[in-house]
Amino acid sequence: MAQTKKTRKKPVRIRRPSSKSLPLKTGMAPGSLTYVGDSSPAPVKLHLISFSASSIVELENPSAEAVESHVKKGAVTWLQVAGLADTGLIRLLGEIFHIHPLTLEDILDTTQRPKVDETDGYLFVLLKTLRQDADSREISPEQISLVLGPNFLVSFQETQTNLFEPMLTRLRSGLGRIRKSGPDYLMYSVMDVVVDNYFVILEKVAETIESLEEELVTHPGKETLNDLHKLKTDMIYLRRSIWPLREIVVQLTRGEMKLIQESTQPYLRDVYDHTIHAIDSLETYRDILSGMLDIYLTSVNNRLSEIMKVLTIIATIFIPLTFLSGWYGMNFKHMPELDWVWGYPMIIAVAVSVVIGMLLFFRRKGWI
Amino acid sequence: MAQTKKTRKKPVRIRRPSSKSLPLKTGMAPGSLTYVGDSSPAPVKLHLISFSASSIVELENPSAEAVESHVKKGAVTWLQVAGLADTGLIRLLGEIFHIHPLTLEDILDTTQRPKVDETDGYLFVLLKTLRQDADSREISPEQISLVLGPNFLVSFQETQTNLFEPMLTRLRSGLGRIRKSGPDYLMYSVMDVVVDNYFVILEKVAETIESLEEELVTHPGKETLNDLHKLKTDMIYLRRSIWPLREIVVQLTRGEMKLIQESTQPYLRDVYDHTIHAIDSLETYRDILSGMLDIYLTSVNNRLSEIMKVLTIIATIFIPLTFLSGWYGMNFKHMPELDWVWGYPMIIAVAVSVVIGMLLFFRRKGWI
Amino acid sequence: MAQTKKTRKKPVRIRRPSSKSLPLKTGMAPGSLTYVGDSSPAPVKLHLISFSASSIVELENPSAEAVESHVKKGAVTWLQVAGLADTGLIRLLGEIFHIHPLTLEDILDTTQRPKVDETDGYLFVLLKTLRQDADSREISPEQISLVLGPNFLVSFQETQTNLFEPMLTRLRSGLGRIRKSGPDYLMYSVMDVVVDNYFVILEKVAETIESLEEELVTHPGKETLNDLHKLKTDMIYLRRSIWPLREIVVQLTRGEMKLIQESTQPYLRDVYDHTIHAIDSLETYRDILSGMLDIYLTSVNNRLSEIMKVLTIIATIFIPLTFLSGWYGMNFKHMPELDWVWGYPMIIAVAVSVVIGMLLFFRRKGWI
Amino acid sequence: MAQTKKTRKKPVRIRRPSSKSLPLKTGMAPGSLTYVGDSSPAPVKLHLISFSASSIVELENPSAEAVESHVKKGAVTWLQVAGLADTGLIRLLGEIFHIHPLTLEDILDTTQRPKVDETDGYLFVLLKTLRQDADSREISPEQISLVLGPNFLVSFQETQTNLFEPMLTRLRSGLGRIRKSGPDYLMYSVMDVVVDNYFVILEKVAETIESLEEELVTHPGKETLNDLHKLKTDMIYLRRSIWPLREIVVQLTRGEMKLIQESTQPYLRDVYDHTIHAIDSLETYRDILSGMLDIYLTSVNNRLSEIMKVLTIIATIFIPLTFLSGWYGMNFKHMPELDWVWGYPMIIAVAVSVVIGMLLFFRRKGWI
Amino acid sequence: MAQTKKTRKKPVRIRRPSSKSLPLKTGMAPGSLTYVGDSSPAPVKLHLISFSASSIVELENPSAEAVESHVKKGAVTWLQVAGLADTGLIRLLGEIFHIHPLTLEDILDTTQRPKVDETDGYLFVLLKTLRQDADSREISPEQISLVLGPNFLVSFQETQTNLFEPMLTRLRSGLGRIRKSGPDYLMYSVMDVVVDNYFVILEKVAETIESLEEELVTHPGKETLNDLHKLKTDMIYLRRSIWPLREIVVQLTRGEMKLIQESTQPYLRDVYDHTIHAIDSLETYRDILSGMLDIYLTSVNNRLSEIMKVLTIIATIFIPLTFLSGWYGMNFKHMPELDWVWGYPMIIAVAVSVVIGMLLFFRRKGWI
Repeated sequence: MAQTKKTRKKPVRIRRPSSKSLPLKTGMAPGSLTYVGDSSPAPVKLHLISFSASSIVELENPSAEAVESHVKKGAVTWLQVAGLADTGLIRLLGEIFHIHPLTLEDILDTTQRPKVDETDGYLFVLLKTLRQDADSREISPEQISLVLGPNFLVSFQETQTNLFEPMLTRLRSGLGRIRKSGPDYLMYSVMDVVVDNYFVILEKVAETIESLEEELVTHPGKETLNDLHKLKTDMIYLRRSIWPLREIVVQLTRGEMKLIQESTQPYLRDVYDHTIHAIDSLETYRDILSGMLDIYLTSVNNRLSEIMKVLTIIATIFIPLTFLSGWYGMNFKHMPELDWVWGYPMIIAVAVSVVIGMLLFFRRKGWI
Repeated sequence: MAQTKKTRKKPVRIRRPSSKSLPLKTGMAPGSLTYVGDSSPAPVKLHLISFSASSIVELENPSAEAVESHVKKGAVTWLQVAGLADTGLIRLLGEIFHIHPLTLEDILDTTQRPKVDETDGYLFVLLKTLRQDADSREISPEQISLVLGPNFLVSFQETQTNLFEPMLTRLRSGLGRIRKSGPDYLMYSVMDVVVDNYFVILEKVAETIESLEEELVTHPGKETLNDLHKLKTDMIYLRRSIWPLREIVVQLTRGEMKLIQESTQPYLRDVYDHTIHAIDSLETYRDILSGMLDIYLTSVNNRLSEIMKVLTIIATIFIPLTFLSGWYGMNFKHMPELDWVWGYPMIIAVAVSVVIGMLLFFRRKGWI
Repeated sequence: MAQTKKTRKKPVRIRRPSSKSLPLKTGMAPGSLTYVGDSSPAPVKLHLISFSASSIVELENPSAEAVESHVKKGAVTWLQVAGLADTGLIRLLGEIFHIHPLTLEDILDTTQRPKVDETDGYLFVLLKTLRQDADSREISPEQISLVLGPNFLVSFQETQTNLFEPMLTRLRSGLGRIRKSGPDYLMYSVMDVVVDNYFVILEKVAETIESLEEELVTHPGKETLNDLHKLKTDMIYLRRSIWPLREIVVQLTRGEMKLIQESTQPYLRDVYDHTIHAIDSLETYRDILSGMLDIYLTSVNNRLSEIMKVLTIIATIFIPLTFLSGWYGMNFKHMPELDWVWGYPMIIAVAVSVVIGMLLFFRRKGWI
Repeated sequence: MAQTKKTRKKPVRIRRPSSKSLPLKTGMAPGSLTYVGDSSPAPVKLHLISFSASSIVELENPSAEAVESHVKKGAVTWLQVAGLADTGLIRLLGEIFHIHPLTLEDILDTTQRPKVDETDGYLFVLLKTLRQDADSREISPEQISLVLGPNFLVSFQETQTNLFEPMLTRLRSGLGRIRKSGPDYLMYSVMDVVVDNYFVILEKVAETIESLEEELVTHPGKETLNDLHKLKTDMIYLRRSIWPLREIVVQLTRGEMKLIQESTQPYLRDVYDHTIHAIDSLETYRDILSGMLDIYLTSVNNRLSEIMKVLTIIATIFIPLTFLSGWYGMNFKHMPELDWVWGYPMIIAVAVSVVIGMLLFFRRKGWI
Repeated sequence: MAQTKKTRKKPVRIRRPSSKSLPLKTGMAPGSLTYVGDSSPAPVKLHLISFSASSIVELENPSAEAVESHVKKGAVTWLQVAGLADTGLIRLLGEIFHIHPLTLEDILDTTQRPKVDETDGYLFVLLKTLRQDADSREISPEQISLVLGPNFLVSFQETQTNLFEPMLTRLRSGLGRIRKSGPDYLMYSVMDVVVDNYFVILEKVAETIESLEEELVTHPGKETLNDLHKLKTDMIYLRRSIWPLREIVVQLTRGEMKLIQESTQPYLRDVYDHTIHAIDSLETYRDILSGMLDIYLTSVNNRLSEIMKVLTIIATIFIPLTFLSGWYGMNFKHMPELDWVWGYPMIIAVAVSVVIGMLLFFRRKGWI
């Protein structure tokens, strides 16, 4: 058993949101900005990219004025905000981009469900991405908020991530449609990265299911059950992150959002297809896991049956024999059989026929 | 076991509505006012707040005339009614605010489901809040009815509560939007407090689930099962309180209610998001609890298997040996083996080989 | 066990519709009138009430002409028909009130599902009420059909019932809205009585669940299982009676029925709320019952585990000891231990250490 | 057990469609006519009825010309086609009545699901009826296709059946609406017969459930389980036949079909009510069967508990006693107790107290 | 057992998509063409058929120019592309037929879900067919993409298949509608072949279920459980392939697609009926499999009960007897019974009455 433990592949684990993750703010004024997230958040980093088809400018941690002037210039501007701890800065950005206080509250409250909101000046999309810790193989959800304006996209994320690195490379190289399109295509690109990232996690889940399925057939144990249970609970949490996305993308593809151009629609429909694919896989895995739990339960019962069969065979063969030998171990003065010359051979014959009779009975029952 | 009992954290308990809580009024005329609630209700307390952006007036237990004159003055007026025992007073308020008898009946009948009703002069919203008793950790649902008029909000609650204290503080201080907005924003604020309060309860549920989940892994017992069952039943009752709220807020945000201004809509959509979040958490907890019950059942079966394995191993090793020793305890006169010099060593050899054979058999079966 | 039986409260029982209750009329012409109900129906009783705000007239078993003249006079007329055995009379009434043959067929066929039908001259509503037998505590569904015309309401019921007695009292006294309103308010009143009556039954179900829940914790037995199963099946039948009502009331409140006045709408919405409340309670009870069955199954498994533990402890302690004593009961001539002076004390020491060893093993397993 | 077998009522059995019943025609040209049904179909029989309110003409196996001339005359014509083996004849009828090749294909393919299709000249309705074999009590689904034209109805069925006999009697006698109405009323009448026929089958299912429910309480056995399983599988197949009918009748009652007159609508709504009733009963039976399977499983576990209790009581009483007697059966030279005068009475006292102790222990556990 | 294994029919197996089958392309530019499929794909083969009602031309592996000229000529052209490895060629075809890069990406990504997309110049339909390997009886899903233009149909498939052979024969012979119709009818024909092919697979599933159902009754074993589980998992994967097809065909039959002519609609509705039939069968098989798993679990419990009953009967008969004989095997000096003349006959009488008593007890319990 100890050996098995060592060779078992560490299954993928999704970090359970602690009970602290519910938005507990009773009595606070609506729109009051408080960061509801990890206790020790990373410091805020800004990254501004302003580009047109012909030119691209990048700024690390630009000043508020620099941001404002870039946005006013009219080129497509992408401001990446990594880290949400500095509420003052967030409020300042809110003023620059005219973001409603309730939207800012949503951005800071990392316990939110994914959603989309269209307001007068901008489109607000809140997503959940899944970040895998390199060491612990633990996966934790992370909130990504997108504010899409006429010529800008502001993206807020909890920590610095290299998820968008390939996208930046494409931007810098000027290849593909991304430099030639508006901020709506930029937003699509971010959403595409987020959804595609789900498949990385789903692949790990699929791998874990495959190895558990094999374990279930060869040597099911308590650990298999625990892993199955944990994986099933993980699926519930994963589902909560991915499922609302469907509705969001449906709303975006309905063609009623003013800030999204006609030409971006096919791309958003593509995101929709991928989202459905992810949800579909999730449901499939859930169904398979349920089936596996049933199989586990049945095989436990089967094993019990097996054990009982062995006990019953041994016991029912030997219990009559033991009685027989006990019988002639009695010390009565007057037991005629004991004095017979053929008494002992006779008793051997009886014992042998009991054993044969029992074996025949078991064979008829199909137990041996 | 007794030790475990003492250290077990008392799980959160939701007060089950007694079978008396069904609206049993067969044969009574519709619209007849009877208080259907706790047998010994608290005395009625009135609290009137009349405010504009610049001024605020508060009155404890004002007279009917005082209420009427304040409402007629045109400032935004909030009348808090705590306690529903005095049906005469309720009827009087009904006349002052022109409330339909059926609405008054609903206000007094604390067995109602949450609902919203729009009539000619006012909007009626009936909610359920959850009040936790400080001593017993027991949670009991409490009905809050809101009547929203053009310039007033009347709120009815079963008992005096300090749930709205932070709201009052905001009102008095004049901070935030609340003093500058109409009674619809006031109603939103009350609803926001009620929904946010659900998360306090949900957090306690989440904590109980977490501790039960640990208990399930380390030392599952009858108490774990009982707590799981009770928690699951509680979730059913909790769901009944929260679920209808979704529909209510959807109706309010549809923008068809005349008494709700355009500018309050984003705030109500925020309440909607929170309601969905609460329902979502509830469903997640339900799924997790179902999974835990399955695990419990499987682990009970597992334990049974374990017990049977021990019994079978002991029994199948010793039963043949016992037979063997019984055999040579027989008192036949003519048992040649008994007289052999090597009889006893031979029998020892047979016994040892039976034991070794059995152990090998068990090892092959993977039982030891 | 016998004692427990005596003190058990007789659970509420719903009379199962016999397999005869399916509408078996293959080959009959549509619209042909046959009474499909109890084999020995009560004799038909008519009761006519004709009223305006100022006057009220009552007639027992009026003649067809009397009925016709009252309806033509234009006052609001309520004709109560108790008993459906006299198909001739029903056909006659059908002619007086211009009721379509298919409607008459539905009235007589007591196996119908609740439904609403609007035709040219009248509105037809078919309901199910639940009548509890005073002696046997048995509950049986009973069909109530309502035909609402411009100035009349005809109500058909299977047997005489005192369900509408309080309503008649209100009518006679002239209190409330009922005398001042039209036949649509009258119909609402009847529906209100029917729906409120469901809560009487639901209260009994809730009581039975509560006592079963207690029984489940203290002394679950075969009877608990049987009662749970019966109650669950009852809920299925109860649901069939109540569930279609929701759709009916929705249709009535949609405001498209010509015969229902605007002012009656709030009252019908009230009936809707009550219907939803009843369905909601029903679903809650169903969920709780399912949970209880799971708990029962788990506790049966738990008890089995418990029993096996006792057996295993006793057996695994004594089986080795029995072998030991059997061993030295062998009659070999040459067993040196038997002749040792310290042989017997030695064997006592071995026995004691086996017992202690086993007890330690069980303690480590957590079994004792 | 054998006795039980003999007295068991043979449960109703629905003939399972063989795996051959899937429409396996890969690669065939659409619209190619092949009879997909029983291998040895009955010979085709035609029966033509042409009627108006005043006259009726009947023809057995009319020639194609006779059929054509009757249809052209303009009276309402009903052509019954019993047997589908003669594809040439079917094609000929297709030409006479202008039926699309795809419709003909559907008529011949008896593996179709119930459906409705409106095309230019006619309305096509495909139904499933259930025919019970007189001898074997086996029920097999049978396809009935209806082609409704402006003045004709063609009905195709797999075999000769006396299902429509009462309808023909009504037609011949001229009673009721049927002679005075058009072919749409005729189609309604056929559908009414088909739906009413479901209740005959459902009644048999209800009877079987009732007798199984009793068996479950009194003497559940392997046969009960098998019957429950079979009945549940039957319900799945039955549901497949009846469920699509709902959608069909909804489409017909929507009032958009040109060939169905306004006056026939109430009758079709009646068919709708019956269909809903049948589906409703089916769902109820399914729920009850699921509950019964749960009960069966629980009672099997209960019985196991019972058996183990008996074993445990017997074993735990006698195992210590057996050890005791074995102990004093040892042949040690130096066992002082054996020589005591009070040794034997003492051992009797010990044995008796062990028995009493055990019995007290079991009583405390509530096992006896 | 070994014998059973040999005679067991190898059940149909669906190749599980490996975890590699999720579309893992994070960070790649949308529309970048990469073949996501089997590692060693077959070489690409082109087959061009250009036909009108009067003439037909076929070309094997035509050049790009040949393809282009044929399309421009205006006859109906069907280009079959078998094999997706040559992305350059696919890109070239994309340019010839003006296919959007995202569509090309979908064609190459064989992990896609079935879907339909209408764009400016063409209609894109992505399907899954099921190919059965001749040797291994293993079934693997295969993607078929259809691009329908005004006068052309391009079909992409992963490997060369003879699925469309009968269709080609019909085309060449000029029989049926296919030569007289446009490319939309051609597309319908392809879809028809794909859907009809599902029934071949479903038939195999039905056969496997039938043989497993028999096995379940006669000799259920571990293999039965494994096969049931695998089949159930297969159904989940199969469902994923077939289910989305329903939505696709609904969209095509809604009559909003410009490229599909009115006259093709009835044929597409026929495909819809077949799709529903396939889904329906799938759901039925799923329900039956769930029922079979329940039955398996119950029968395992039943067998355990059976085994325990045998053990209990044997043990409870012999344990008291063994004690009895052990008792009189004690070596006390003073045991008066041992010296009685009638001692031995008396003990025989006691033993016989214990056996008879036990047998009576078991008979009363209904165990024998």
